[in-house]
Amino acid sequence: MSASKSYLERSKLHSNPTAKAFLELMERKKSNLSVAADLTSKHALIELADKVGPYICLLKTHIDVVDDFDQDLVDQLTALAKKHDFMIFEDRKFADIGNTVKLQYSSGVYKIASWSDITNAHTVPGEGIIQGLREVGLPLNRCLLLLAEMSSAGTLAKGDYTTTTVELARKYKDFVVGFIAMQRYEDRDGDDFIYMTPGVGLDQTSDGLGQQWKHPREVIYDRGCDVIIVGRGIYGNGRDAAKEAKRYQEAGWNAYLERIK
Amino acid sequence: MSASKSYLERSKLHSNPTAKAFLELMERKKSNLSVAADLTSKHALIELADKVGPYICLLKTHIDVVDDFDQDLVDQLTALAKKHDFMIFEDRKFADIGNTVKLQYSSGVYKIASWSDITNAHTVPGEGIIQGLREVGLPLNRCLLLLAEMSSAGTLAKGDYTTTTVELARKYKDFVVGFIAMQRYEDRDGDDFIYMTPGVGLDQTSDGLGQQWKHPREVIYDRGCDVIIVGRGIYGNGRDAAKEAKRYQEAGWNAYLERIK
Repeated sequence: MSASKSYLERSKLHSNPTAKAFLELMERKKSNLSVAADLTSKHALIELADKVGPYICLLKTHIDVVDDFDQDLVDQLTALAKKHDFMIFEDRKFADIGNTVKLQYSSGVYKIASWSDITNAHTVPGEGIIQGLREVGLPLNRCLLLLAEMSSAGTLAKGDYTTTTVELARKYKDFVVGFIAMQRYEDRDGDDFIYMTPGVGLDQTSDGLGQQWKHPREVIYDRGCDVIIVGRGIYGNGRDAAKEAKRYQEAGWNAYLERIK
Repeated sequence: MSASKSYLERSKLHSNPTAKAFLELMERKKSNLSVAADLTSKHALIELADKVGPYICLLKTHIDVVDDFDQDLVDQLTALAKKHDFMIFEDRKFADIGNTVKLQYSSGVYKIASWSDITNAHTVPGEGIIQGLREVGLPLNRCLLLLAEMSSAGTLAKGDYTTTTVELARKYKDFVVGFIAMQRYEDRDGDDFIYMTPGVGLDQTSDGLGQQWKHPREVIYDRGCDVIIVGRGIYGNGRDAAKEAKRYQEAGWNAYLERIK
């Protein structure tokens, strides 16, 4: 089962080039930490990326909340990704029909496909959304995560919704390389999906707007997921982001070592 | 039942100021047509809005596909809305947790809440998404549609997903004024939701990426919906947008007159 293999072993067997490179990167850097950089100023976002860069495998962005976004922000983020050896994941949560997401992914002010290694999509529109994104992303060597579950209270991504999402991922394995999920699902036919889990925190459990936080060990060891996504736990409330990122990196990595041993 | 009442009667009973104004506008303009303006150039979008403006009640935008978006585009669109008497609906399909959608709605390059009368959201994240958008939108007199169903093939917005979405709308009636849906649901406790239906076409039935088209009469008369959303049927394949908009306006309005008589 893929959960008991190391990221490095899994990278050797993976067919998608970006997923392969990502698993190698995690092993090389000893990090399964993604920081969710939900900041509204370009300066603050770049500063955060530079601070947490040494500790993360993946920078998760919401590029559409940055008030002073410009192409230079993208250039700086991709330079930082190179400097610190991390990938970029625009958490766009595409959620429209195929024809529309093709435009949203390739065009507009953000041109997400041109710089984001990984992005994600909801399956609520049906499989056309994957087909549309795949048309744009596959020639650029990009890859996609599907939202199979969410960390927020009362989410409708559960039961049959989740089951269908996993089936769609299996159908488009060349482009869909993993899930946003709260737990690892059973492998089938040599599947190896990458599981990323938001709502991770060491110190707090809820934000009053429906978000619920889980401990890194619970996510990586107990639930068998691969990447912990941490936001406000790292830079909220005036925290020292570098110090906190190091703390989460260690917590996530130790849970992983325990899982594969 | 609200489906048998005129838009004008319904406007008099509606508590949300924007929904009220929108129902009045439909009656005044004799239009239940929304044009889905999925264009990637600012010039083309403004030109289309000006051409179809006289025939529509609502311009539906995907502002994030416009390559040369700037504040002047927003200024021109809002000026055209005033000139031709229509409202603007940014079809953002918000789909994230409450804390994130608050930022996506209010901030970033687009500042959607500052100019879009109506926007919409998926309920897959749970009710936090409505709470987050409501915190931003209610003080600005904005309103929200929930995606209860979609027009695309294999959509997961069905069954329990749809039922829960309708319950959430009832819980936040002061802000949620209607649905993206393929049919009208039963009223309860004096409900009056506005039903908008995409995937409407007079001449074609599918696009090969999962989108499926229905006739205006089927949508308004048979299914009891209120607004037909038409995109490529109006401006695709070199069509004369003004001429087509007039044709759809008449088809939609005649079906409505037949329904309420």
